Amino acid sequence: MPGNTFGSLFRVTTWGESHGPALGAVIDGCPPNFPLSEKDIQKELDRRRPGQSAVGTSRSEDDKVKILSGVFQGKTLGTPISLIIENKDQRSKDYAKIKNLYRPGHADYAWDLKYGIRDYRGGGRSSGRETAARVMAGAIAKKYLAMKFKTRIIGHTVQVGDIEAVTFQEKAIEQNAMRCADPIKAKAMEKLVLETKKDGDSVGGIAEFIVKIPPAALGEPVFDKLQADLGKALFSIATVKGVEFGSGFQAARLHGSENNDEFICKNGKITTKTNNAGGLHGGISIGTDIIIRTAIKPASSILKSQKTVNKKGEETTVSVHGRHDACIIPRFIPVAESMIAIVIMDHLLRQKAIK
Amino acid sequence: MPGNTFGSLFRVTTWGESHGPALGAVIDGCPPNFPLSEKDIQKELDRRRPGQSAVGTSRSEDDKVKILSGVFQGKTLGTPISLIIENKDQRSKDYAKIKNLYRPGHADYAWDLKYGIRDYRGGGRSSGRETAARVMAGAIAKKYLAMKFKTRIIGHTVQVGDIEAVTFQEKAIEQNAMRCADPIKAKAMEKLVLETKKDGDSVGGIAEFIVKIPPAALGEPVFDKLQADLGKALFSIATVKGVEFGSGFQAARLHGSENNDEFICKNGKITTKTNNAGGLHGGISIGTDIIIRTAIKPASSILKSQKTVNKKGEETTVSVHGRHDACIIPRFIPVAESMIAIVIMDHLLRQKAIK
Amino acid sequence: MPGNTFGSLFRVTTWGESHGPALGAVIDGCPPNFPLSEKDIQKELDRRRPGQSAVGTSRSEDDKVKILSGVFQGKTLGTPISLIIENKDQRSKDYAKIKNLYRPGHADYAWDLKYGIRDYRGGGRSSGRETAARVMAGAIAKKYLAMKFKTRIIGHTVQVGDIEAVTFQEKAIEQNAMRCADPIKAKAMEKLVLETKKDGDSVGGIAEFIVKIPPAALGEPVFDKLQADLGKALFSIATVKGVEFGSGFQAARLHGSENNDEFICKNGKITTKTNNAGGLHGGISIGTDIIIRTAIKPASSILKSQKTVNKKGEETTVSVHGRHDACIIPRFIPVAESMIAIVIMDHLLRQKAIK
Amino acid sequence: MPGNTFGSLFRVTTWGESHGPALGAVIDGCPPNFPLSEKDIQKELDRRRPGQSAVGTSRSEDDKVKILSGVFQGKTLGTPISLIIENKDQRSKDYAKIKNLYRPGHADYAWDLKYGIRDYRGGGRSSGRETAARVMAGAIAKKYLAMKFKTRIIGHTVQVGDIEAVTFQEKAIEQNAMRCADPIKAKAMEKLVLETKKDGDSVGGIAEFIVKIPPAALGEPVFDKLQADLGKALFSIATVKGVEFGSGFQAARLHGSENNDEFICKNGKITTKTNNAGGLHGGISIGTDIIIRTAIKPASSILKSQKTVNKKGEETTVSVHGRHDACIIPRFIPVAESMIAIVIMDHLLRQKAIK
Repeated sequence: MPGNTFGSLFRVTTWGESHGPALGAVIDGCPPNFPLSEKDIQKELDRRRPGQSAVGTSRSEDDKVKILSGVFQGKTLGTPISLIIENKDQRSKDYAKIKNLYRPGHADYAWDLKYGIRDYRGGGRSSGRETAARVMAGAIAKKYLAMKFKTRIIGHTVQVGDIEAVTFQEKAIEQNAMRCADPIKAKAMEKLVLETKKDGDSVGGIAEFIVKIPPAALGEPVFDKLQADLGKALFSIATVKGVEFGSGFQAARLHGSENNDEFICKNGKITTKTNNAGGLHGGISIGTDIIIRTAIKPASSILKSQKTVNKKGEETTVSVHGRHDACIIPRFIPVAESMIAIVIMDHLLRQKAIK
Repeated sequence: MPGNTFGSLFRVTTWGESHGPALGAVIDGCPPNFPLSEKDIQKELDRRRPGQSAVGTSRSEDDKVKILSGVFQGKTLGTPISLIIENKDQRSKDYAKIKNLYRPGHADYAWDLKYGIRDYRGGGRSSGRETAARVMAGAIAKKYLAMKFKTRIIGHTVQVGDIEAVTFQEKAIEQNAMRCADPIKAKAMEKLVLETKKDGDSVGGIAEFIVKIPPAALGEPVFDKLQADLGKALFSIATVKGVEFGSGFQAARLHGSENNDEFICKNGKITTKTNNAGGLHGGISIGTDIIIRTAIKPASSILKSQKTVNKKGEETTVSVHGRHDACIIPRFIPVAESMIAIVIMDHLLRQKAIK
Repeated sequence: MPGNTFGSLFRVTTWGESHGPALGAVIDGCPPNFPLSEKDIQKELDRRRPGQSAVGTSRSEDDKVKILSGVFQGKTLGTPISLIIENKDQRSKDYAKIKNLYRPGHADYAWDLKYGIRDYRGGGRSSGRETAARVMAGAIAKKYLAMKFKTRIIGHTVQVGDIEAVTFQEKAIEQNAMRCADPIKAKAMEKLVLETKKDGDSVGGIAEFIVKIPPAALGEPVFDKLQADLGKALFSIATVKGVEFGSGFQAARLHGSENNDEFICKNGKITTKTNNAGGLHGGISIGTDIIIRTAIKPASSILKSQKTVNKKGEETTVSVHGRHDACIIPRFIPVAESMIAIVIMDHLLRQKAIK
Repeated sequence: MPGNTFGSLFRVTTWGESHGPALGAVIDGCPPNFPLSEKDIQKELDRRRPGQSAVGTSRSEDDKVKILSGVFQGKTLGTPISLIIENKDQRSKDYAKIKNLYRPGHADYAWDLKYGIRDYRGGGRSSGRETAARVMAGAIAKKYLAMKFKTRIIGHTVQVGDIEAVTFQEKAIEQNAMRCADPIKAKAMEKLVLETKKDGDSVGGIAEFIVKIPPAALGEPVFDKLQADLGKALFSIATVKGVEFGSGFQAARLHGSENNDEFICKNGKITTKTNNAGGLHGGISIGTDIIIRTAIKPASSILKSQKTVNKKGEETTVSVHGRHDACIIPRFIPVAESMIAIVIMDHLLRQKAIK
């Protein structure tokens, strides 16, 4: 079964190679009669766009979305929404010399094993560029959830290398290049990234996501728990190597009496006193904040010379030229938010079917 | 879309409430002509069985599997394999007094929100008892992978509370009640669990899984990466609150030049020098060890009195009587191994379809 | 992808070989809080049961259903409903002599090609016995649709051999062995079947299905039209070789001006004057009667000697002993009704998700 | 669950409204390393194109396909193949006056019931124009099956109104406007269609499809039989109102001893003497010709004035201006062939997974 479709009722299919003529997404199952414009999507796409700041890549792609179907007179039709971005700033020649090499940290070798053929230009479909399509689909889910439930998804950088954020000022997030809610640590992070870039290297980090006012009762026992589908969604982004909910890995050190969230009644509504569960009980949302943290590995493309082999297994070295992100987290955040929105949207429709 | 089926080509559907007459699994898509007996399945079921040691629950269920279909004269037919366990040691009365209460850490409240009805006896279908069905299905996948590829999945406890394993002796794992590969730390862990139990409390921990000799080229870009489906499989176990692959959360602190695994050629075969990627490149297996770590929260059922509310939102307290696991990790390990085996088996068939 | 699951939101998985220990169905996605008992299911199962009359097989299986999960205190839980029938009247020895032969009209050869192994006893899983599981699942869908929408599905025999029904008296259907709504033609049909039986032969026919008061707006463009999924459901019953909706094959002879159904307004409701479309416009239900006809081939198992080959390709003859149906239509009707009910139920939930 | 994706392993998603900017298909799961060009697809598209002859519509759309992804240096990558056609000859104004009317025979009313909104220009997504996307996807499947198995799918018109073909000359099919294998009857059919066109009316008919040298062992018991999925595929084309395999509705009149196909051994290969089963035993292909016939209703769009109602239920009349097909069968044939090819391709991959 091929893997380029995500979701069951809100169904996103993406396509496109990094250096092909275009990339896109087809969203099937979006409820009809919902206002949608290219602007709604462009807004989110711009948050992922390369060239936003010095910490990211200097490639400067416009990434202009076009809606090709599914919207009529400003409203969704209930039919598939086809979205497309034409690729423009392609420098395919950069890649010719690495076509027979396996870049460390990249999927080159894995794809050769899998398909016996690959588009080596910019990683082809294994490129992070593919995530632009996810952001377009996510923008629709985000708008729907915001309109109907006032749900919003806050993504922010909590760690880069050894630097950890210590305060949380939501407004600060979009005001610094790191998308960090701690404006002081943001500067330290930015400095680290720029130094790393100068070294021709990259650096990893941790991003946190808080879903405010999520619809309750989402998640399908036993396998399609909301927690499970969120986990899958995030691990489907190649750069993610760890995911945790609520107390996460810290829960390993706790006793049940510490980690269990006591139920209370607040303003006539049942809720919990603490939120170690990260808003997910038995994997199902109960309407409290959903808390997720993701570990992002340092970007694989670095200028520094690395040992590797070619297709024949002969040893060689590689230095990945091109215009790369020394720290991918600021651009990863809108991608992860999108995947989270898609999962919640999908489960919202799934829950509607049985209610 | 309901959530009780897992996998696309090797497809597992489970059913059953904790205190209903029986529970079971239907496995559709198992290749034909493969030798299979109840013994193959019973062996794994016994590793998950309650009552194995003092660290677990004192409930003593036989959990005897019966094969009802799909196997003929000792071989699989290619038709659905229906497996059933009759429930025997049910003490439903224990649960009558909690039928209107929401036990902290449990899914009671979430299920009421979701379905408006729930079988409160032992948690009904939200009970960990449901995972017995997963172990049965996993046993088939494990046997197939072992026979055809010599693949094996080693699960072991690496942390309980603050105690961390420091050595790895594979043979030790099944020789201590903690399923810990460090026999000295195993004793310390066991002691901690027994003390915790005496306190009417529970404790969390971390389990690691190593897939040795996995088939290569598994995982479907871009959404159904092996990493994504493994993440989903593990997060579908309610007790898991964190999952990481390879260097995982540690990757946040590293530079690309440290975290990238250099390719080398060893005995004429391409492999990597280090394994920070945990055997998954771009989410796809390359044939090297797959390394996964999962954070397990302390079991929610504790004897200690906890504050909570009832259905009406009135405050009350609850103490979860019954025979519970003070540390669930030793019994969690075969469940997680099973889910890992099911994912690999499913992706093996998916890869066969395109090769 | 294995094929033993049907439906997307109301999801039916069946299992079991004809002469195995049991057969069953798991229904996932049934809405919670819906009253359901074994009696509801048994009632429909009894309509399919062998041994109801002289026109059918003389095998006499009890076919007693047991509910193993998903129902608590008389109501559905929203969790999978596991239903089981134990096989009792098995005479496996009858089949030993045909284990290496390919019975004409049967799937024996096809299954050997497909799986390289088969349970030859009574056709194993390719047996019509498998449809008992479909009837159990269908009984749930039927009850739900009747309770919520007053929908009912009327199946009746309109042709056997060359004898065609000419009148329609709904009440007559369950009062004759042929399930024919024309009591006079029913007698002629019955006579033909008994003569055919005496000759050791079988005879085909046509059954019609009318869905009264179906929910409107069901069917998902463009591939999962209600018409498409009904067609699939009926063609998944091995004995069906033709399906038509509304004017069906007669439409080939008509002009658009004759075949188009003019819209009218009746009692303030939009409907159509004629119903050549069989209640399906663009494949979607509009709330008027859905009209379906199915061609049923004569049962393959006949006593008459037939030429065939064995596994090695050597010519031989076969006479299928055992207790077979000379005309399968009366027992086919509840099976087809069940599949129709399952499709409508599934699409009802699918439509709920977007409304 | 939305309905714009077809197939499980060879997975086709289509999108686009009749008068939107473009329409397209995304094909996921196409095996890698397979030669594919726009020419391969254009060839089939040209067979469906409007304006081929006087019997069809006089609209003249170019329908030029562009490949946007999934093909690199002339070979498939294993990644999604995105295909697009830009819409050009759109005369949207023609439709303004019918935006509140329900055209008899069309899906207008059904779509309003379903979505509460619709693109009324040319039927929007309910237009037959959508099938161009299916033809593009089918072209890939056809090429693959022809290359690997020499499979080919012959579609031809066997009846128009009361005129039935009596001879079969395969070469004649593409040499007359009716795609009829009987060149003499073809002329009579053509005459009938042109007269019908002059009357502002349309006429129905029957098309037959013969799959020569299909791969054997395709079809997944019990629900996804090849017969079931072929039935669904064909009934998903709105114009189809009947489907039959092999002896089809004629089987109703036969005895088992007449309808059963005796097995024989020919040139060392097992096959059958007759082919009443239409090449499908128990719904599974055995490698002999697959025989399918489909009843096509007369096209709904006619110039003749018809009674109908508007959205408010008020009676009115409508005459569907525009450039329509008086007989849709010649253009239906490549669409149906495509759906058949897609089903066979999908099941081929499904069978590979278990072999």
